[in-house]
Parts: sequence; C-alpha cells; structure tokens
Amino acid sequence: MDEFEIIRSYFCRQVADPQLKIGIGDDCAVFNPGSGHIAVTTDTLVEGVHFFSDADPEAVGFKSLAVNVSDLAAMGAVPKYFTLALTIPEYNSRFLEKFSHGLFRMASSCGISLIGGDTTHGPLSITITAIGTTKPGMEITRSGARPGDEIYVSGELGGAALAVFLKSNATHLTDPLLESDSFMKLDYPQPRVELGCSLAGVASSMLDLSDGLSSDLMHILEQSATGAHIELEQIPYSRSLFELDLFNRINFAVSGGDDYELCFTVPPEKRNALKEIAEKLGISVTRIGTVTADRGEITYTLNGIPFDIKTRGYNHFAK
Amino acid sequence: MDEFEIIRSYFCRQVADPQLKIGIGDDCAVFNPGSGHIAVTTDTLVEGVHFFSDADPEAVGFKSLAVNVSDLAAMGAVPKYFTLALTIPEYNSRFLEKFSHGLFRMASSCGISLIGGDTTHGPLSITITAIGTTKPGMEITRSGARPGDEIYVSGELGGAALAVFLKSNATHLTDPLLESDSFMKLDYPQPRVELGCSLAGVASSMLDLSDGLSSDLMHILEQSATGAHIELEQIPYSRSLFELDLFNRINFAVSGGDDYELCFTVPPEKRNALKEIAEKLGISVTRIGTVTADRGEITYTLNGIPFDIKTRGYNHFAK
Repeated sequence: MDEFEIIRSYFCRQVADPQLKIGIGDDCAVFNPGSGHIAVTTDTLVEGVHFFSDADPEAVGFKSLAVNVSDLAAMGAVPKYFTLALTIPEYNSRFLEKFSHGLFRMASSCGISLIGGDTTHGPLSITITAIGTTKPGMEITRSGARPGDEIYVSGELGGAALAVFLKSNATHLTDPLLESDSFMKLDYPQPRVELGCSLAGVASSMLDLSDGLSSDLMHILEQSATGAHIELEQIPYSRSLFELDLFNRINFAVSGGDDYELCFTVPPEKRNALKEIAEKLGISVTRIGTVTADRGEITYTLNGIPFDIKTRGYNHFAK
Repeated sequence: MDEFEIIRSYFCRQVADPQLKIGIGDDCAVFNPGSGHIAVTTDTLVEGVHFFSDADPEAVGFKSLAVNVSDLAAMGAVPKYFTLALTIPEYNSRFLEKFSHGLFRMASSCGISLIGGDTTHGPLSITITAIGTTKPGMEITRSGARPGDEIYVSGELGGAALAVFLKSNATHLTDPLLESDSFMKLDYPQPRVELGCSLAGVASSMLDLSDGLSSDLMHILEQSATGAHIELEQIPYSRSLFELDLFNRINFAVSGGDDYELCFTVPPEKRNALKEIAEKLGISVTRIGTVTADRGEITYTLNGIPFDIKTRGYNHFAK
C-alpha cells in the first residue's frame, strides 16, 4: 500500500462545506474564509515523548487533534479545518484504522474537517495544523490580564499527570474507577471549544493547560506584565487524585501537564456573566486566584499560609 | 536552553504586516485573510528519508520551506504565512543557527512569514504548513486538463535525482561544476512562485514535480480523466546530466523526483499568452507533450518511436 492508497483508505472523508473549495488531493486545499479572522496553530506528538510506545492508536489519533483544537479554543476560535502530517515507520493497517478512527471521532465532535496533509516514512510522529475562525478583534490572547482580575480554570486538574506517573512507575491506584478516570483524561482530553468560544468579551486573557498550571500561567503573566496569587485550597483537584496525600495532589494538579483545561482571567465585574455562561454550558469553572501587580511572580497559599511550589511544569529540552 | 528560548533565539522575526493580528507566542496566530481564498499545504521532511543525515542544516531549512512554497505556487497562490513544527534529537546551536538561516533565506525570497509552530524533542523531522491566498475561482487545480492541451514544464529536469544518485553511490561526475549544479538543485530548490501566480487563466491544470514527472503527471491525468503523450526529445534535461548516456538522462529526468519545477497544461489558443508570461519573468518553459483522451495512460516517444519507461517516481511505502 502506497501513500496515496493510505490517504484514500483511511483519511478521505466527504466534507459537506460550501466554503471548502478544494479538499484533499490537490497541491493545496483552498477555502473561502468568509468575514472572520483566521486562527492557526500547530502541535506535534512524538512517540515516546508525548505518548507511550504502547499507547492505543485510537487515543493517539484522538489526542493529536484534541491538543490542537484546544489551542483554537484557548484563542476563542471556532474550529474549521486541519491538516495532518503523519510519519509512520511502516504500513500497519491496524494502527491506521484505529488512529484514523480516533482522529475522526475528535474531528466530528467539534466540527473540524481534514483538508490535507502528508504521509511519510520515519519514526512515528504526528503534526497537526488546526485552523479556526474568530470574530475580528474578539480573539482572547495571553496579554490582557490586569491586576485584580480573577483567575479561573475549567474542569479538574491533575488527572492526566497522575496517569503518566502510574504508567511510568508501573503502579496502580486502589480504586480502578479512579485510575480509569485518570487515563481517560490523559488519552482522550476534551478540548473546551464551547467554553472558549463563549468567553469573548468576558475573559481578559486565556490559554490552555498543556505543560502544567504553574508554567502555563507564567505565559499569561509574562505577556500581561502581571503576577498571580493562587489559593491552593481552591484548585479543582481531579477526583482521581483522592488516594494521594495533599502534597502530591498539589504537585500533580499545579505542576503536572496534559490536562487541556482552559485557564483564563476575568475582571470582577464580569463574574456574573461567566457564571451564566458556565451554567448554560454545564461546564464547571473554578476561581483559583487573583492577578497581581507582582510582574512575573506567582505566590501560592494553602488556607492563607504561604506554600512553596518547587517542581515545575514539563518543558522539552529543559535540564 | 528550553523550547521557548529556542523559539526566541532562532525563530522570532519581526513581521511588518498589518494583516497579521497575532504572531508567534500565543495559543494561535491570527490573521485577517482579506478578500481572497486561503490555500493550505503541509509537507514533512524526515532525516534519512527526505534528506541525508549529513546534509547541511542550512539546506534542510531552506528546502523544508521551499517544498511547501512550491505547492502554493502549483496552485497559483501567493505565499503569505507558515508554521514550523521542528522535532530535534537534542539542543544543537550550530544546527539551529544554520537551519534557521536557510529557512529565513527562503522565506524572505518569497515574502512568506513564520507565524507559529512547535519545537519538540525526537528524531529529526520538519513539518511545515504554508498558507497562501488566491483570487477566488482562479486556483489552478489538477483536474482541468483537456485532450489537446499542451503539456509544459518549467526549468530543467533530472538534476536533483542525479545528486541523490551520486551521493547514494559515493560517486562523482567528471566536471565538478556540473556536479555542484546538480547538488544546488537538490539542496536549494527554487519554487516557481512568480510563474505559478501568473498562470491563472492560462494553465488549465498544474502541479509541482516532487516525486518525478512520470508519477506526478499521472495525478493530473487521473483527476482530469485524460492521458498524455510525452516527446522525450523535448524534455529540458538538466545540464548536469550531460555526462550520462541518453537512457540514464531520460531515467533521471522522467522518473527522478525532487526538481520542484512546475508541470502544467495549456490550451493551444493560450500558447502565446504563456510565451509572453515566460519571457516577462525570464523563466524557461518547455512544451514536452500533449494531453490525450487515453484516460490514465502516458505514452512516450523518442523522435517519434515508442519508448518504454520502466521505472517509476519515488513513492513512500511502495515496495
């Protein structure tokens, strides 16, 4: 089976979209962008770095797209199209079937269409470029946080990092249900598309949590020239962390990555607007702290007492 | 040095472009697409597959972008933006300096700006997604060739494939100047942006030659439901092939890939319009054959006598 047959067999799906003028199979895909702005993001997943070598290919396909869609959500963009650059060591129909199944499961759940890509031979890795649309001027960047804004996160934190720990250390939780919760979070993260798209005009800054709260929040602080105070007792700890002691819970939830929840800041006067949006969508959002004027500094307290966070979020190439 | 420092040190360049609303450093880049359609293409280059392990990093950077820009050119699109997904085994300042130098040399030569990407740890590979704009309805696809249309290629063919052969077999040409011609073509392909953008309304179909004339032309024929007759004596053989016998010249030029010249079809009544464009741009274009009604079949003749082409273009995963 050659690269063209692989594309035809596993990756060509009919797209009913009058804006898509030319889909898979030409030198480029071509679409009519309409009146919006175009948001673009690219993320790579490498075997052995971003996913375990024995990971379920369905989860790999699902997650490869989910992490990119999560970046669109973090900008407040509506997902539209993506390209897939798939590098595989050899032709493997079982892998391709499961991978494409997971990929398209994610794609249909958020209305994003595959419009092109490249299939090459080499060590397993997946690069996806996702394209979305925003209302001009309504993009939610990392630079809009102001002292006094409240800091929120969606969902729960720490579940994905716990799964990485359990897998790396070949150990288990006592409760298999909590453990499967943790692995679901790692393998099948749900990008917060609806929430992200609803926060334009409400959130002053936003990003998605991929490397971990403590290191990702720093990007908002650096780009907004602000600081933050985090109240650790407010963190929405993943219920999969309940078998752990408090220090480990904090460690996984604050320094652990891969949750793909949204972290955003909201001016106090928009607190009620946020509450309404969250209720309407049925998504939990939790206030975990406040933006401060201490440029580039995060202070942590636990029930009012200063708490020293030593570990940092995951960073490729850091020693 | 961590991934953020790598991006800051090597890949952040000021972009003076009022249409670019948000550049590198947020969850997504955001641009105003204006009134055009958006063309998107993605290509991956893997070490040991698409370039030799001892390749000059400057050439790798240059070519990674060039092959993507070539796809935009083949659609008649104007290059605008690109994202870079760079996977490298370890931090290597010499590699990054030379790679980024080659990348931005290509970028500035065709007015395309880096707006985002991802830097990850793993076996060396580069995936670029290039974005361009087209005038709505003026895209040049692979499906518009009609029997009687004339088949053209830009530039010369076979030089890049010869370089791959010389390198793989650790052999040399007698004339070092011809040999360096051949390696320039392999390492620093020049995408035909101006020509591609000028052919709207003139070319009925177009693509770029990456896998080789014989296999790439087949894509036009399949998508246009036509055939082709190629006159081998008309092929513009790379001058680097002059030390080879005729059979080998034909083999490299027809079956060898990596030339990144444009192959396109033109209705006979637009022959003069093409001539004017080529003269104005100072780019050689050569008529090499004719589109026929023999669906999916290419016949070759050499000075009027049928010629059997046995070898095929390069295809990943083909046995």
